[in-house]
Parts: sequence; structure tokens; C-alpha cells
Amino acid sequence: MIYFDNSATTKPYKEVLDSFVTVSSQYYGNPSSLHNMGGQAEKLLTQSREQVAKLLEVKPSEIYFTSGGTESNNMAIKGAAMVNRNRGRHIITSSIEHASVLEAMEQLAGGGFDITYLPVDKDSNVSVNDVEKAIRKDTILVSIMQVNNEVGSIQPIGKIGEMLKKHPSILFHIDSVQAIGKVPLSLYRNRVDFCSLSAHKFHGLKGTGALFIREGVRLAPLLSGGNQERKLRSGTENVAGFVAMAKALRMTMANGELGIAKLKKIQEKLRAGLNEFDGVTIHTPLEGAAPHILNFSLDGMKSEVFLHALEREGLFVSTTSACSSKKKSPSKTLLAMGVSEDLADRSIRISLSFENTEEEAREALTIIKKTVNQLRKVMN
Amino acid sequence: MIYFDNSATTKPYKEVLDSFVTVSSQYYGNPSSLHNMGGQAEKLLTQSREQVAKLLEVKPSEIYFTSGGTESNNMAIKGAAMVNRNRGRHIITSSIEHASVLEAMEQLAGGGFDITYLPVDKDSNVSVNDVEKAIRKDTILVSIMQVNNEVGSIQPIGKIGEMLKKHPSILFHIDSVQAIGKVPLSLYRNRVDFCSLSAHKFHGLKGTGALFIREGVRLAPLLSGGNQERKLRSGTENVAGFVAMAKALRMTMANGELGIAKLKKIQEKLRAGLNEFDGVTIHTPLEGAAPHILNFSLDGMKSEVFLHALEREGLFVSTTSACSSKKKSPSKTLLAMGVSEDLADRSIRISLSFENTEEEAREALTIIKKTVNQLRKVMN
Ligand SMILES: Cc1ncc(COP(=O)(O)O)c(C=O)c1O
Ligand SMILES: Cc1ncc(COP(=O)(O)O)c(C=O)c1O
Repeated sequence: MIYFDNSATTKPYKEVLDSFVTVSSQYYGNPSSLHNMGGQAEKLLTQSREQVAKLLEVKPSEIYFTSGGTESNNMAIKGAAMVNRNRGRHIITSSIEHASVLEAMEQLAGGGFDITYLPVDKDSNVSVNDVEKAIRKDTILVSIMQVNNEVGSIQPIGKIGEMLKKHPSILFHIDSVQAIGKVPLSLYRNRVDFCSLSAHKFHGLKGTGALFIREGVRLAPLLSGGNQERKLRSGTENVAGFVAMAKALRMTMANGELGIAKLKKIQEKLRAGLNEFDGVTIHTPLEGAAPHILNFSLDGMKSEVFLHALEREGLFVSTTSACSSKKKSPSKTLLAMGVSEDLADRSIRISLSFENTEEEAREALTIIKKTVNQLRKVMN
Repeated sequence: MIYFDNSATTKPYKEVLDSFVTVSSQYYGNPSSLHNMGGQAEKLLTQSREQVAKLLEVKPSEIYFTSGGTESNNMAIKGAAMVNRNRGRHIITSSIEHASVLEAMEQLAGGGFDITYLPVDKDSNVSVNDVEKAIRKDTILVSIMQVNNEVGSIQPIGKIGEMLKKHPSILFHIDSVQAIGKVPLSLYRNRVDFCSLSAHKFHGLKGTGALFIREGVRLAPLLSGGNQERKLRSGTENVAGFVAMAKALRMTMANGELGIAKLKKIQEKLRAGLNEFDGVTIHTPLEGAAPHILNFSLDGMKSEVFLHALEREGLFVSTTSACSSKKKSPSKTLLAMGVSEDLADRSIRISLSFENTEEEAREALTIIKKTVNQLRKVMN
């Protein structure tokens, strides 16, 4: 089996799951409890926060644990909108964001906010000029993803952050769910106010994530209650899940530049192999793409049929983002890039993890070749 | 060690944790993925939903998985408020609700809603008459907990539900986080529209919960995005966590009437034992209390000092609800019941699980006696 759908979700590292089990069975106290069992749980939570903060090169007090990327995105966007709504109601985002950003924006639009959805160029990139031109007196937030989940394009976070230094009252949120460990970025240097993470994208567990909130930045909580997470995210903490997330992040980041170079090599091998096929279009830009995503279309190969045929050969890929898979409408990102609907209907996303190998890439290409030949034969 | 702080959190059942590990390591696909690994995960999710629904005697389509009790409460209350705000902005709740209800209400109050906080009597019970009298033309929601987490009083959900049948446009939310498995209730017969659950209170895992939403009832989602959970709760599903929750619920409910009677017996033993102490006040009502909570004060025993002294003897209890423990302000519920601040400052909560035994109750009483004698000697 070759699992090339890591942008949908990854397999948890064994060590990560082991930590989860140890904490769940031995340190199950409620971190808010006054007794020692609570104290131990609280300590584990603190250590996890410190570890995540250290890996992201920020302060522990800037890390808030959440239930995943969707919650982090909703929390940052709605929370910032609510707290600043008397200052202004204009928000800038892009047309290629993940549904958890786009739908949060739609809800805000329904509540009287005005949203600017920036276009992207043919390489699926937002332009910093467009962001700047969209800024108005009442702009309170800019939300741009760091790496697009469908084609892997890296957005110009550095340039946008630099430009936003001229606008200190505008908050800057980035969705780094697909970027963590694969596209390094300094949150401080790039003037980021909020950054969303999701553990199951880097071999952590589903239902855990984090939001970085820069010191001094205010938010209205989405989940209010017992005042956990310094009042911004209430609810008994999933201690074992956050210990596991910290470990997954550490293990992922440990791959470092070497790991990223290895990923890039696998990606290049796949790209080179695919380029030899008749009627291939590769949507992932050659320059400025994350090392783990490769999105392409092949003439005559309808995405879903192709996906299932590949699956029968033991190769697992995706047609688009996982959560949009079942809608059967063409990829929003591809359409925004100017790809035709016909081509978008045939798109396949390969997404790698640090666990994948060059050998798997070779095998995958063999499977793709065989499958394409079979399907094309059937259709002729 | 005697763990009598089960209302703060419970130890996950071994079988529950085993299921979590199996699903996380073998069925880690994203349930939204089109391939078979996604299909398997989706199937597990469906089965868990069916199992939870069956145990609660409702339809699978009425069960929405969340990240816990706090999210379920916020989702029901804020979601119902948002969707109905043009119909009315008055909400009725009680003064003894969990922080995740009270704080959600405070946020709504800040956003133009009018909240009525009903008082309770000396047994910590809301009166159905008070609820009825509080109803106005613009009332959209009544939110009352089923079992209070600090003293264990059972609220008159049946009577309130019956009365609300005359007011079909008013939604009825109950917080059953402390009641599940211990105080049976028919959601349909009692005209409940929303019911909140939290898995870590019944030997499931922290960070998982559910919200029952009666068929046909609308909500504005708190977490929007990829449209998981029939568009009401987006985010990649914590499949392993929900499989584990379904198992924990099944195991908990399997204790049945016999298990509840056993709990009641342990509670009675503790009550009888405590009643023999000088200067004891038991806050948990004799009639109409859940079988697992016993809240009391002992003359001269400041809660926190007492708690730590008991802990040194291996007995783990709580001063109040876990999430309020560190505030060091007296219990809101006790004050609402008319208990003096002085007495409230000395309250201790014992909370049992089905795993506790009569033998532990006996030992606990011995520890309490020894500790009280020692502390009283020191203080004199
Ligand atoms: C770019 C991006 N943002 C946010 C999310 C949502 O994260 P989660 O699945 O943890 O809710 C995803 C993946 O689903 C994603 O790819
Ligand atoms: C009555 C009640 N409601 C809600 C909650 C919140 O649940 P969770 O800890 O899963 O957020 C709790 C416990 O913390 C509770 O006792």
C-alpha cells in the first residue's frame, strides 16, 4: 500500500500514540483539579505548550490548544472580527483558502461584515499588491493561508507581513495547517498575529490543534466557560492529545532541511515521471510550491474513476481537499488559477509525508502508468 | 489511592483506550476521503453515531460529535441564539449552571440578548413555576442542567419539558454532562431540543463529546468549514475518539439500574458516615440528588487545606467544580442555595464512578476522620 493522501490526514507516529496512551491511563487527572493528579496533568500541559512554543520560536503564553485546524481558523477569524467590530468590518482573504476560512468569512458576511476575496495568478499565488490595494480604513483583518492544500502553492506571507507593518491596526492571520514542518516560517519576523495548526496533518491525532496568538492581541472566545487556555478556549483540556501533538511536532520538525530536501526529491521524481505521460497537465507550480503536494490532470481520466482505479492497485490519492471530495464540484483553487472546468474535473492530488520514499514514488508511477493504459484502453 | 473526583474527570476504561489505539493506528483515513481508507473511517464514525443514538434512544441523524461538553453547550446556546435572534432575544437559564453555559450567556448578553438567571431553592432546585413565569413573548431558549455538578441536585427537566409543550417555539437545551448513565432520561418524552454530553465524564477520552439536536431544529454552526457533521460542526472528525466515546457510553449504560443502586448505596454509606462527624453540613439534598455526588462542609476545615490533607492520605476529592477550583471564590451553586459564604468556603465534593466500591467508601471515611482529628488538633 502506498499512502499518498497525507494532506487529507497522516498516520499517527507510533511514539505519538504511545504517549497518548501513557498520559490517558496514568495522568488522567483534570488539569484544573487542585490535587496532585490535577497538578501532574497541568504540568504535562505546560510542558507540551513550552515544547510547541519552542519549536515555533514563540512564547508558551502565545500557544492556545484547540480541537484542530478548523477550530483554530474559526477562533482566529470570528474571534478577531467580534472583538474589533466597532473599529471596522472589512476583512481581506483569498479565493483559495480552506473551507474553514471561507465558511467562517461567509458567516461573518451574513452578520454585516464585508469580505474581499482576492484572486490568484496562474501559479495559485495571491499578490501582495492586491492585498495592499484592498486595504481600506475599516479593514481589521487579513487572512491568508501559508500553503494551499490543493496545489501546494506557497503564499507570499513574508511580503504581506512586511507590507502590513505599515498598518499596525490590521490583524494578520495565517493558516499554516499544510505548511508546518515543510515550509519553515518565522512568525515574529513576518508580523503574524494568528497562526493555525492541526496535529493530524503532521502525524499527531485528529481532534487536536493549536492557535498561535501574538502577545497583546485580543480575541472574543468561541468556546467560553471554565476559562481554560487563559480564558480564550474553555473546556477540559485534552492533555494526552496535546502531549501527543507536541511530540508529533517535535518529530516532524526533526526532519529539518534534510527531510524537506528528500521530500522535494520525491516530488521532483513524480513530476518528471508524470511529465512523460501523454496529455498530462501539472497544476502545482514548478517554483514556489511546498515539497509535499503535486496536483495534476491526465487527459481522459475523470478524477473519481481514476482515484478508485489507483486504489485497486494499492495507491491512495485524492481528487481535491478531503472535505470537498464528496461535493463532486471541481476544485475551487484550480478554477481560481484559471484552470478550465474540464481539466479541474480530472485533477488528482498526491500529497506526501516524511515517511514516504523514493521507492514508493517509483512504484506509484508504475501503477499510474498501468492504470492510465488500462483505462484509456477501456474508453477507446 | 481512592479517586473520588469523578465529576472533574474519570479514568478512561482500558477497552476504550484500546479501541482508540486500534482505530488511530489501523483506520486513520480521513472520513471525507473518497478511497477505501476514508470509507472505513466513515463507516466507523457512522457505527459510533448509531451506537450513541441507540443508547440515548434517538436517531443517529440527531447526534453531532463535538470536542466536549463545553463545545456542546456553546454550540447549542450560541447557535440557537444566532439563528433565532430576529424572533427574540430573551433566554432563560439558572444561576447554578456550569461555567460553559453561564459564560456563553454572558457573551450573548454583551451582544444584545437579555438573560434571566433563575434562582434555586435550598435543595438547589429550579422551580418549573419560575421558568413559566419568566417566559416572555421574545423568549427563544430555556437552558437548564440535568444534574448540577457541584451538589448533584437533579433539576425538574420532565416538568419543564411538559410545561414547554405549551410553548412550541421555545427551544429547550439541557446540559446532561453529569447525568449520563446515572440519571436516566428520555429526550423525546421530555421535549428536549438539545442535550450536551462529554465523554471524559463517563470513562471516555477528554476532547470528545456530543450534542443531541432534535430533528428539524436549526442552529448556526460555531465551527464552520468542510461541512462535516451535516454542516453543523466542521473539522476533520476525531474518529478514534468518537469510537472510544461510543464504547465508553455503552459500558457506562451497561451498569444500568443495578449499577445506579450500587452507587446510591455507596453515597448513602458516605452520608451516614459523615453525619456522625461533629459540625458537618451536607449540601447534597437527601431526596432528588444524583447517586454520585456528595457535597459537604466540616466546621473548621477550610476546603483547600482539607483537600490537600486528604490527598496526603491517598484520597482525591474536589472543593468545587474542577474548572472553578483555582479561582478560590466560594461555590456559586452553594451561594445560590442560600449556604453562607463561610460554609461554602469549607465545602468538599466527593464524586463517584461506577468503578468505586463500598470498601473505598469505608476507607475514605476512615481517612476523613483521621484527617479531621489531626487538623482540628493542630488548629486548637
Ligand atoms: C489548509 C487547511 N486549513 C485547515 C484545515 C482544517 O483542519 P482540521 O482538519 O484539523 O479541522 C485543513 C485540513 O482539513 C487544511 O488543509
Ligand atoms: C455540568 C457540566 N457541564 C459542562 C461541562 C464541560 O464539559 P467539558 O469538560 O467536556 O468541556 C462540565 C465539566 O467540566 C460539567 O460538569
